[in-house]
Amino acid sequence: MTTRVAVLGAQGRMGSTSVTALEAAEGLEVVAQVDVGDPIERVTEQEADVALVFTTPDVALEQVLWCVEQGVHVVVGTSGFDGDRLRAVREAVEQRTDVSVLVVPNFSIGAVLLMRFAATAAPFFESVEIIEMHHPAKVDAPSGTAVRTAELVAAARAEAGSDPVPDATTTDPEGARGAKVDGITVHAVRSRGFVASQEVLLGGEGEILSLRHDSSTRESFMPGVVTAVRHVADRPGVTVGLDAVLGLDA
Amino acid sequence: MTTRVAVLGAQGRMGSTSVTALEAAEGLEVVAQVDVGDPIERVTEQEADVALVFTTPDVALEQVLWCVEQGVHVVVGTSGFDGDRLRAVREAVEQRTDVSVLVVPNFSIGAVLLMRFAATAAPFFESVEIIEMHHPAKVDAPSGTAVRTAELVAAARAEAGSDPVPDATTTDPEGARGAKVDGITVHAVRSRGFVASQEVLLGGEGEILSLRHDSSTRESFMPGVVTAVRHVADRPGVTVGLDAVLGLDA
Amino acid sequence: MTTRVAVLGAQGRMGSTSVTALEAAEGLEVVAQVDVGDPIERVTEQEADVALVFTTPDVALEQVLWCVEQGVHVVVGTSGFDGDRLRAVREAVEQRTDVSVLVVPNFSIGAVLLMRFAATAAPFFESVEIIEMHHPAKVDAPSGTAVRTAELVAAARAEAGSDPVPDATTTDPEGARGAKVDGITVHAVRSRGFVASQEVLLGGEGEILSLRHDSSTRESFMPGVVTAVRHVADRPGVTVGLDAVLGLDA
Amino acid sequence: MTTRVAVLGAQGRMGSTSVTALEAAEGLEVVAQVDVGDPIERVTEQEADVALVFTTPDVALEQVLWCVEQGVHVVVGTSGFDGDRLRAVREAVEQRTDVSVLVVPNFSIGAVLLMRFAATAAPFFESVEIIEMHHPAKVDAPSGTAVRTAELVAAARAEAGSDPVPDATTTDPEGARGAKVDGITVHAVRSRGFVASQEVLLGGEGEILSLRHDSSTRESFMPGVVTAVRHVADRPGVTVGLDAVLGLDA
Repeated sequence: MTTRVAVLGAQGRMGSTSVTALEAAEGLEVVAQVDVGDPIERVTEQEADVALVFTTPDVALEQVLWCVEQGVHVVVGTSGFDGDRLRAVREAVEQRTDVSVLVVPNFSIGAVLLMRFAATAAPFFESVEIIEMHHPAKVDAPSGTAVRTAELVAAARAEAGSDPVPDATTTDPEGARGAKVDGITVHAVRSRGFVASQEVLLGGEGEILSLRHDSSTRESFMPGVVTAVRHVADRPGVTVGLDAVLGLDA
Repeated sequence: MTTRVAVLGAQGRMGSTSVTALEAAEGLEVVAQVDVGDPIERVTEQEADVALVFTTPDVALEQVLWCVEQGVHVVVGTSGFDGDRLRAVREAVEQRTDVSVLVVPNFSIGAVLLMRFAATAAPFFESVEIIEMHHPAKVDAPSGTAVRTAELVAAARAEAGSDPVPDATTTDPEGARGAKVDGITVHAVRSRGFVASQEVLLGGEGEILSLRHDSSTRESFMPGVVTAVRHVADRPGVTVGLDAVLGLDA
Repeated sequence: MTTRVAVLGAQGRMGSTSVTALEAAEGLEVVAQVDVGDPIERVTEQEADVALVFTTPDVALEQVLWCVEQGVHVVVGTSGFDGDRLRAVREAVEQRTDVSVLVVPNFSIGAVLLMRFAATAAPFFESVEIIEMHHPAKVDAPSGTAVRTAELVAAARAEAGSDPVPDATTTDPEGARGAKVDGITVHAVRSRGFVASQEVLLGGEGEILSLRHDSSTRESFMPGVVTAVRHVADRPGVTVGLDAVLGLDA
Repeated sequence: MTTRVAVLGAQGRMGSTSVTALEAAEGLEVVAQVDVGDPIERVTEQEADVALVFTTPDVALEQVLWCVEQGVHVVVGTSGFDGDRLRAVREAVEQRTDVSVLVVPNFSIGAVLLMRFAATAAPFFESVEIIEMHHPAKVDAPSGTAVRTAELVAAARAEAGSDPVPDATTTDPEGARGAKVDGITVHAVRSRGFVASQEVLLGGEGEILSLRHDSSTRESFMPGVVTAVRHVADRPGVTVGLDAVLGLDA
């Protein structure tokens, strides 16, 4: 059985790379490409099973709600799709319990695994610090992924009753790019030559465990996109995060 | 409640470091230290709950069997405690179902986590290679931990139906230190300055996930020793591997 | 004063990327682009000061000799331009002492610096090993750059009277991808996600110095191309290697 | 010819490790060990050629001046030996032009090479950032070595006329441990498991050159101590820094 996929925002950078990846994936077929000015009805005309949405947040909300109403499963790749938008989708899905919506803040399987591993390992080590490295055109520091990782690490330590990370620093008059997030120090490197990298350092007496992910091209998101589209229908209701479809919670 | 611990091989390097660590750990008390020439009866005279064994393989087997017979739980830290020795212990424990034996080939929690993470991540990446780095006095290559990691990675990929790791190499006339284990290439670095390090590189299109553990002192094994002693009694029968007592299989 | 540049092999990958980079560089102007089927006379008609050659080895030799005869300086970026070809150019330049030819086996300034630093540091450390990491479509192992680095390291140690690198390995039945080059072990990693990376590990008692270069795009060669074109005229005769024009030998 | 060495502060950590290392080194002999309460005259009674000083700054100054007056060459390993102390020694040496004094702020050859390499490479890359990693008991951030490295990098870039390091950050409300030193961002990691590590990241379009030094034991300083003692007599007058005796300025 082939899964029929519609891509919304098909001419954007993530959309067009996804079209190529989905067409190359076994068992998937791109039956509709919708971009600005195209009628969304193509999705149903072409009998798509799943809509993959990469449009801007406001357009995306409308499109997701329309797809849900039509009984089409949705993978949302639009950034910043949270808060009110997420609530609106949850309400809509309560009316259509046969429809699944998967909201994916980060399609990088490597980055998602790194976060999980960091949280799992965190209670076993005295110290944890995070270094994220991005291109120098990035305007915000630290990165959203690093903040999320720090939050997960801090939550895992809190649950395990870990002590605070030790730090005897008394003289640090200036500070550098980064932040302390829930007690976890995050360093933000900005340098030409990086696209998006993150390293979590976990330290104990006489040992360091370091978990690092380096991403250099948009192609690195494609296994995540394909996995999301393949498995969105398996999870009824609204799900947030790629983890849910990686089969890690056996 | 305090757990009373006897250390067998208490004057060896791991034994003596463990005595210090156990005495510093909350809820544990070292009540007997046994070394060459000392009567093993000290274990029961001092009413030890758990015996921690670091003696040589042949002595160790006798000691473990004696402890089991006496109803004392055992953590086995002796290297190379497998095959016939393990079978003999399993038989003995069948007669004493109230006793737990935990055999620990590697007390480094960091190394154990690294192996688990590598196996979990392996099916999500096209390529996996392992680099292990040890001091130049090591006589065998690759290291036992690296071989074990490669086996776990290969097994995880086989179960997931992963393709073989891609490799177009046609000219490689000489070869370097290391091996190909179940299809996974393991590189063995020998350099002054390393004690025991291992890095697993997982590569996909446009991304690398690297998991690395560096161990520089015997103290890095102590959290594993303490955890094993604390939790040995929770698992009836004979268990192999620290994983079982890390609480990772919720 | 603007330097007028002709690019030969202008439609190839390195050629076309170089045209873009040279046009963006201050003081340089691309006045001629020559590719298959185009007359080489464009170089002199457009009064080029420097010809940058990226054509195939056989075509390249003819073109370089013609440029030398015409009094045009040449930067040779064609791979494998050595042996007989280099000798032929040296002879030609003996007749035209006003012309400079710079043959560049590697335009990456980072890679060239890494090799120099490795050779400088090598005599100060007991151990040196090299890890090179490339994409899995590469057919030869180890990489030419790694072999060259190992040779430079070995030569520096020989000159300094260093002892052989210590290695107690007695059991290494299989071997992995790589080679031992002049006594220096080179490990060759092949994994999706790498383009061209190299790490030199220098180890002493209680310390590791690691020098690593990661290259992910052809753009990383452009500073080397621009520097070569800018400075080729400064060095009369035939010169091999980018080092010569980096101003490092004050 | 054997060089006769007196160690002042012989029972301190650096002093005692140095005594062992000097006795193992070819051509060197420890003829006097002086510590608190011992008469400094042992240095001359035992006809030492070189005094190696690891005492506290105030004691050290007196001892160095006494040695200079007696015609004994001095290697100063005492931390913080600069400013007025250095001036006093320079004045004393002007009266005894046959005596050499070598003040060594950092005996790690690896760390000294890293600083040199970073300064050499810095003008060839758009971006430079530094990450230093130390144990969590360190009270100051960033480390002195990292600050010195940043200063050398900044000076090399200024001399070469490099542009400022690019950085588009507009949102970085909190900051992390570290500092911006002469325009170079230094990140300070504090984690159990590190002793003293430093990494310099140099980034250009599509490439990263990373230079890293990890030091885990005091033994890593011994090659620097031995080299300083061996070569102090070669450089008349007062010299600061190990570089001068590494033979790098051919």
